[in-house]
Amino acid sequence: MTKWGRRAATFRDLVAEAGKATFDSNPNIKPANVKSFIISTVYPERSAYQGHPAPLAAEWCGVRPEEFHCRVENQCGSGTTAIRTAYAAIKAGLTDMVMIVGAEKILIPSHQEVFLNAMAGCDREWESCFGVTPPPLFAMVAQAHMKSYGTTEEQLALVSVKNHDHSRHNPFAHHQKGATLDQVMSSRPIATPLKLFDCSTNTDGAAGVIVAKEDLARDLCDKPIYILGTAQINQGYPWANYHKDWSSWPALKTAGEKAYSMAGIAPEDVDLAEVHDCFTISEIMEYEELGFCPKGEGGPFVENRLSDYGGRVVVNPSGGLIACGHPFGATGIRQAYEAFVQLRGEAGARQVPGARIALTHNLSGLGEHHILIYGRD
Amino acid sequence: MTKWGRRAATFRDLVAEAGKATFDSNPNIKPANVKSFIISTVYPERSAYQGHPAPLAAEWCGVRPEEFHCRVENQCGSGTTAIRTAYAAIKAGLTDMVMIVGAEKILIPSHQEVFLNAMAGCDREWESCFGVTPPPLFAMVAQAHMKSYGTTEEQLALVSVKNHDHSRHNPFAHHQKGATLDQVMSSRPIATPLKLFDCSTNTDGAAGVIVAKEDLARDLCDKPIYILGTAQINQGYPWANYHKDWSSWPALKTAGEKAYSMAGIAPEDVDLAEVHDCFTISEIMEYEELGFCPKGEGGPFVENRLSDYGGRVVVNPSGGLIACGHPFGATGIRQAYEAFVQLRGEAGARQVPGARIALTHNLSGLGEHHILIYGRD
Repeated sequence: MTKWGRRAATFRDLVAEAGKATFDSNPNIKPANVKSFIISTVYPERSAYQGHPAPLAAEWCGVRPEEFHCRVENQCGSGTTAIRTAYAAIKAGLTDMVMIVGAEKILIPSHQEVFLNAMAGCDREWESCFGVTPPPLFAMVAQAHMKSYGTTEEQLALVSVKNHDHSRHNPFAHHQKGATLDQVMSSRPIATPLKLFDCSTNTDGAAGVIVAKEDLARDLCDKPIYILGTAQINQGYPWANYHKDWSSWPALKTAGEKAYSMAGIAPEDVDLAEVHDCFTISEIMEYEELGFCPKGEGGPFVENRLSDYGGRVVVNPSGGLIACGHPFGATGIRQAYEAFVQLRGEAGARQVPGARIALTHNLSGLGEHHILIYGRD
Repeated sequence: MTKWGRRAATFRDLVAEAGKATFDSNPNIKPANVKSFIISTVYPERSAYQGHPAPLAAEWCGVRPEEFHCRVENQCGSGTTAIRTAYAAIKAGLTDMVMIVGAEKILIPSHQEVFLNAMAGCDREWESCFGVTPPPLFAMVAQAHMKSYGTTEEQLALVSVKNHDHSRHNPFAHHQKGATLDQVMSSRPIATPLKLFDCSTNTDGAAGVIVAKEDLARDLCDKPIYILGTAQINQGYPWANYHKDWSSWPALKTAGEKAYSMAGIAPEDVDLAEVHDCFTISEIMEYEELGFCPKGEGGPFVENRLSDYGGRVVVNPSGGLIACGHPFGATGIRQAYEAFVQLRGEAGARQVPGARIALTHNLSGLGEHHILIYGRD
């Protein structure tokens, strides 16, 4: 990973830095041995003024793809989609090993470009033009959840407090100073009931992973981690069409069940989960739909510290999107990186003790869920 | 396919029209049965002001993806890359059937957006800013080929004459009026020796295909066509780095050999080829590197009508990029469509008699080659 945050670096710099870090982490893998490359990025056209990033990014990492290469884009869920695509290419026999870099340069002097892009991520003709952009949409989810289940603003805030607490031990996170309940509760309103600290941050950053065929991974890596299960479901678009009950995400429930079934595990087996906390309410929804707690009890779940160290499952030990920041196409790759270091026991002060199973959940829009479940030897 | 050309239609209209045409072509496949969807598109952010097109495009086609979905972007080679990705997802067992729509809305009132994008398709910091964009790059290839092999401007022009002749029988083509040698030779210079009629056209258009597991394809389709071989190689980026000899494309030669080997065929077995004639010189290079004629003899090959009906292989029976137009992300899908109708014997006045094997070659940049080889029962 690169350091995430407000970086004095170009898109090119960030990709190259993540590529170098990826190769530096394992001297058995040289750029010349990598024959396939995927870049996961959402906004290069507008924020880096660069289209067709796949071959350039490969070049910046020293890789000359001869078997499979492309850019995969699925907005905020691009990273996990890219890993699934690499998994498919390997399983289909098109290649044995794929390097994936997720990267985004967002914080450019003209922030207007970023806002234009955030709008372009929704349905421009039927949603964005009416002001339907992510913060108000997730605010409506929060309002519905509060009405249905009595979830409180304090419970939302506690997600942010927990994740800011975790990121104090993550040297790559955008925010590493922690945040008190009072700081979160008194931060400025964005879309009621969501406040500034309930939201993830626009961030520059990149991260890389290498996915390989099982036998090759064992040869090249002392402690590889394994993809045990995966699922991807789209609940529908535009958002307004498919949400009779805004306080539930049935597609996520189905996706979770499918991924657990493929991995041959139950929610109780998950030691740590990197979930898509683009807003605090998202993480609460994810506890429930992923089966970490019963439906409607996500608020008490965080309040009782059951999603923290010593609880039932450590959720977002990295700090999540809220504290690491959210450079769209890089987030799913950062989640994979966290699974990797945690399952190898190399996460230092934020290590989840004895972690054997990690789940990552990446979200695009309000209804596209992308899940990977990882295990170790 | 939709009609390609200067369309009074939005990006949304084009996707929906191609989606409907795809489903209308086979009453055994309903949108509700399709669980996976890929959109192949390059420029929606700038020319349609729409990011995150995958779930929207699925929605516009009536598809709710539950197994695999994303946008695949590889500039001009996006379409073939998307088909390879669908092939991988199916072969890996993630899904049984994938709908792919390639679409581009390019001809918007502010053409400046399009030019900005063309620049963004090259390396903006090291190429575009010095004027290194596709026409001059391909002009340098033409100059090198003329110097090395004595290729003439008339021979280049004859590629355009042939392809414009073919498209007279393609109701979806942008240009359907044919072109004489004199018209091509006297068209205005773009980048010496390339003239206007040596270049493919910016075009609005979309096309759709459905890729399925073999047994499912047999169940659902009376005459399915089969992917027999595929390869994808990137010669390197930026373009200037890797071309000591601009008159040869070694990566294409290797990719062709790999795809032929996978399909268990030789170049002589190919009945028709849809190759990436973004410029006339490209088609001549492709004859040579794909083994349709010896290296350096591409000029005489077209002059002697060996790439036309009654010759050794019919190249671009559709009219190719030059006469169909080139809506970037849709081109690879249109090539697949041509393979489909030709191998089913449904190409009408442009039917290649007895066609059994079709090759499609899609190019991104000057060095990324994407190949599919199709066969029939």
